Amino acid sequence: MDKFMQAAIDEAKKGLAEGGIPIGSVIVHNGIVVGRGHNRRVQKGSVILHGEMDAFENCGRQSASFYRECTLYTTLSPCSMCSGAILLYEIPKVIIGENQTFQGEEAHLISNGVEVDVIQSDECINMMKSFIQERPSLWNEDIGEVG
Amino acid sequence: MDKFMQAAIDEAKKGLAEGGIPIGSVIVHNGIVVGRGHNRRVQKGSVILHGEMDAFENCGRQSASFYRECTLYTTLSPCSMCSGAILLYEIPKVIIGENQTFQGEEAHLISNGVEVDVIQSDECINMMKSFIQERPSLWNEDIGEVG
Repeated sequence: MDKFMQAAIDEAKKGLAEGGIPIGSVIVHNGIVVGRGHNRRVQKGSVILHGEMDAFENCGRQSASFYRECTLYTTLSPCSMCSGAILLYEIPKVIIGENQTFQGEEAHLISNGVEVDVIQSDECINMMKSFIQERPSLWNEDIGEVG
Repeated sequence: MDKFMQAAIDEAKKGLAEGGIPIGSVIVHNGIVVGRGHNRRVQKGSVILHGEMDAFENCGRQSASFYRECTLYTTLSPCSMCSGAILLYEIPKVIIGENQTFQGEEAHLISNGVEVDVIQSDECINMMKSFIQERPSLWNEDIGEVG
């Protein structure tokens, strides 16, 4: 496993250990992790802190040119909100752990010039499968679906 | 002026008075404001708390069916991140103060079935024009543009 995807998985596991939704993300600039995050819906009562958004927030205020040199890693295919943040800051490359349990806005990213790579990690798939089976209503809330 | 757009403008003015970026938003459910917000990049060092995102956050955790009965008001055409949040939670209707100083992702919202109404308020236009003229680098940072 790529060390950056492993760092995103570690974030997802932290979230799970906190009683939260197991989705994690890291933002990498020139080979260095500059932002780490995981979904904090449960932990902070937040409806915007998906894993990717939390990574952006923890990365702090950066210039437009900085973001354009970053790669974002996420354990799960990014939803429309997170994809929108990726497009706002023009992150050029996104590495996705899996899109089997949830299909995000990859097509929208690609049509806007973002390079997208889905690795289909069994670890990511199994983590989300177990979570969705155990907490279906929480999961539906997180993706805006009527449960 | 519609009272809900006025409430969004009041939020924008609060942000300006705090030294921030003057963009405000409210979310309305059954004629009641359930979330108010304004851009907090400066105030909280946040890269995700655009006005609309702040309104979502202040609205708290709600069910998917609740969001589908809401209207979102924003003083400025929503960027890709905020539009993505609107799509995630399937907000059916968005009222926009203006899109003269910044053109957001209205076309993407409309193509996904969101009803979009742009009122082109002079007050909203002038507020943003003055701000962009006075703080161009802060504005560019907020929209991910190289200044």
